[in-house]
Amino acid sequence: MTKIHFTSLILLVFSRLFCSLLDAGLKEAGNKQPAGSSSSPANIIVIFADDLGYGDLGCYGSPVIRTPHLDQLAAEGLRFTDFYSAAEVCSPSRAALLTGRYPIRSGMCGSRRVLFPNSRGGLPAAELTIPEVLKSSGYTTAHIGKWHLGIHEGSRPLDQGFDFSFGLPYSNDMDGRADLPKGATGSPNPPSDGWNVPLIRNGEVIEQPAVQETLTRRYTDEALKFIHENQQRPFFMYLAHTFPHVPLFASEEFRGRSRAGIYGDTVEELDWSVGRILDVLRELKLDQKTFVFFSSDNGPWLIMGQQGGSAGPLRDGKGSTWEGGMRVPGIAWMPGSIAPGVTSVPASTLDLFPTTVALSQSTLPEELVIDGTDLSPLLFQESNLPARPYFYYRGDQLFACRLGEWKAHFSTQTGYGQPKPEVHDVPMLFHLGRDVSEKRSVAGDHPEVIEEIRRVVEKHQMNVTRGTPQFE
Amino acid sequence: MTKIHFTSLILLVFSRLFCSLLDAGLKEAGNKQPAGSSSSPANIIVIFADDLGYGDLGCYGSPVIRTPHLDQLAAEGLRFTDFYSAAEVCSPSRAALLTGRYPIRSGMCGSRRVLFPNSRGGLPAAELTIPEVLKSSGYTTAHIGKWHLGIHEGSRPLDQGFDFSFGLPYSNDMDGRADLPKGATGSPNPPSDGWNVPLIRNGEVIEQPAVQETLTRRYTDEALKFIHENQQRPFFMYLAHTFPHVPLFASEEFRGRSRAGIYGDTVEELDWSVGRILDVLRELKLDQKTFVFFSSDNGPWLIMGQQGGSAGPLRDGKGSTWEGGMRVPGIAWMPGSIAPGVTSVPASTLDLFPTTVALSQSTLPEELVIDGTDLSPLLFQESNLPARPYFYYRGDQLFACRLGEWKAHFSTQTGYGQPKPEVHDVPMLFHLGRDVSEKRSVAGDHPEVIEEIRRVVEKHQMNVTRGTPQFE
Repeated sequence: MTKIHFTSLILLVFSRLFCSLLDAGLKEAGNKQPAGSSSSPANIIVIFADDLGYGDLGCYGSPVIRTPHLDQLAAEGLRFTDFYSAAEVCSPSRAALLTGRYPIRSGMCGSRRVLFPNSRGGLPAAELTIPEVLKSSGYTTAHIGKWHLGIHEGSRPLDQGFDFSFGLPYSNDMDGRADLPKGATGSPNPPSDGWNVPLIRNGEVIEQPAVQETLTRRYTDEALKFIHENQQRPFFMYLAHTFPHVPLFASEEFRGRSRAGIYGDTVEELDWSVGRILDVLRELKLDQKTFVFFSSDNGPWLIMGQQGGSAGPLRDGKGSTWEGGMRVPGIAWMPGSIAPGVTSVPASTLDLFPTTVALSQSTLPEELVIDGTDLSPLLFQESNLPARPYFYYRGDQLFACRLGEWKAHFSTQTGYGQPKPEVHDVPMLFHLGRDVSEKRSVAGDHPEVIEEIRRVVEKHQMNVTRGTPQFE
Repeated sequence: MTKIHFTSLILLVFSRLFCSLLDAGLKEAGNKQPAGSSSSPANIIVIFADDLGYGDLGCYGSPVIRTPHLDQLAAEGLRFTDFYSAAEVCSPSRAALLTGRYPIRSGMCGSRRVLFPNSRGGLPAAELTIPEVLKSSGYTTAHIGKWHLGIHEGSRPLDQGFDFSFGLPYSNDMDGRADLPKGATGSPNPPSDGWNVPLIRNGEVIEQPAVQETLTRRYTDEALKFIHENQQRPFFMYLAHTFPHVPLFASEEFRGRSRAGIYGDTVEELDWSVGRILDVLRELKLDQKTFVFFSSDNGPWLIMGQQGGSAGPLRDGKGSTWEGGMRVPGIAWMPGSIAPGVTSVPASTLDLFPTTVALSQSTLPEELVIDGTDLSPLLFQESNLPARPYFYYRGDQLFACRLGEWKAHFSTQTGYGQPKPEVHDVPMLFHLGRDVSEKRSVAGDHPEVIEEIRRVVEKHQMNVTRGTPQFE
């Protein structure tokens, strides 16, 4: 598993030069100077929770889960009320984050909704990722936590631009033991050895099954070590937590601490982890030169009941293109560069690629098609961004589109449980300001809005080249 | 309307000495010293919104309504995640706030759910109110905003301990004009002259119909004037806003400003009002000696659709004993005395009576039965309170009881729309930490909890003397 790194990396560098010619469109990533007074590029940390819902943090209104460190991150940074993951489930969402491209372009989506241990595909080597760009600008790059973008050559963390990797290759509920009782993933007391998921460091399995109770703590230890070791040079760290994805495990210190049960325990431990990272950034005087972004890969897994999270006032959760499935917490932090506040400007994980590229003072191949927008003006100059549509895909099907406050659903389907989508000849239409819970379609009152959204969708679809499906 | 003040006040003072003998129970209001270094008692401001939902403020997770001043109040003060209004609708809730007693004791509840302009009752003169107690301790007292506790002698603001009163006698949707179109209250553009509600200053009608567009601004002006005029002596101000109760009106400056429509406009104007009050307290250097409490009289009026608010993740709204009907925002603020934070200790508007009595260094008649608890230890010493049950009444019927994290429903009924209650022989049981949205009853798993709650309810009911019904 570890022998092909050099070869594949060299192949990758060359493949970058050609792959993008297949797509047509505009290069949206800017070359603008990053914020901050220093001329050395900023460190970048992306913290990504798994299945954390819109309503699961104190600063997003959770009545039951205590997240003082994330609340402080939000109080000191910019909190997005309208932040989206780029997909409704795990693998596509992560592919989009690292590439800035809708998963349909990379083939990282399909009717088999995520990668499974027996999937033959993965994030194509030809896809350009954040760590690959940043590495070319002198960054040290680390992946810590869940990967879920492929276990085969070309798709693994070290193949995709990371200098260091520590974590699980896929979800913590995969590769369950044959004798695992039904419903074990969503149990408040899942068996510790129920899943045979390996823990991998730099391509080598170091523990199998991974001891899940201490994962959050160990991810955090690795993160702090990485920061310490790289305090003298720019670094990029992608810390993709395993929790609060089921089965839920927390370390002894946190187990039984939250009034919200084991789900709350895992979120509160994750909050602790964020606090430790901020502490160390401050201790090392890196806080003013480190950009931290916190988000989640998709909405809460509602069918897990009390082992699933909350979308707050939003409709449905993980797996769906209702707001609860894709609107997630989004917090940007960089003291001295990002003014504290709350913004309702829509943004998404697609934007992290061009934003981090700009922060790193990197340049991109001219031909590269990306779907995100550099958030720098919003983050560092408190100016608005040009209005842009947001497309809600379920698998490889476009289900909905948001334009300004308006969201049109062409198809709807609950995240889980509803076997087939309901296709709407006249799309459902909601105003996300006046009806954020998507309760009452006002399609009949605004045919002109629907027409405009139809045109935007048509234009988008004409410019999308589908990648080779990777999940089948 | 203004001539009987002196006589009635004198009668009231004497009636206090006897009225309480009818009730049996423990006196819970303490005589503890208030917080703060000064020996002069603290000023007290209670700001009470009308039909504002649990999820309608930024600091409670509203994705759409901007409330920077209330968010700041929360950031500088103590925000309650589990704060309750003492009733599910307006008049009972206000009676409970001012008396510290469940409305059933005062008769301020019943099948006719609130007082109407043609009701013959009102808050009985014999009830002891916060302003009456504080007045006897040298406070100047003001009521500004909605009253809704009676328009007849003995029940009006100046009869109930207020030195000054400015506002509406009841809800802004009452006394509608005969030609008012159906649904006008819940319209996004209600007719300005649709309701014949009078605006009353110290018992005299000064405007009819009240111009509702400027009510929030004028309430605020009166509040600021009152603070200015009383900066040298302790004061109590009960600022009971008319909005966001339908019909919704905002001043020109705020109309059309919120992405959440007119509902958001009115809440954002209310937020502005809070900001103005905090500004003036700071300007006059009264901020460290003024206790401010913000809350709402009940949950959001959901049947009003986009003209109603949001209960966030809570179930149902105004009118119901589901959490969304009675759990509301609750924020306590007193810089230097109250440490900033968030608490999950349950509390309610019933507690404001003993808390303000303690803050004012007043004493109460020994025989007075109140249902609230002095929050001072929690507010000023960051220590916990003794656990206590909370009873959810719908009208004069006890529907549910909370004990710790457990809530048992003996009857359930939606706030509006469900004609009859569903009575549960085996109560429904929810853990409000693990299932704050009351989705799945776990009654079958915890019969011992239900038994304990039954005992608590029986004890409570044995000690309740029902007051004469006032609404019929």
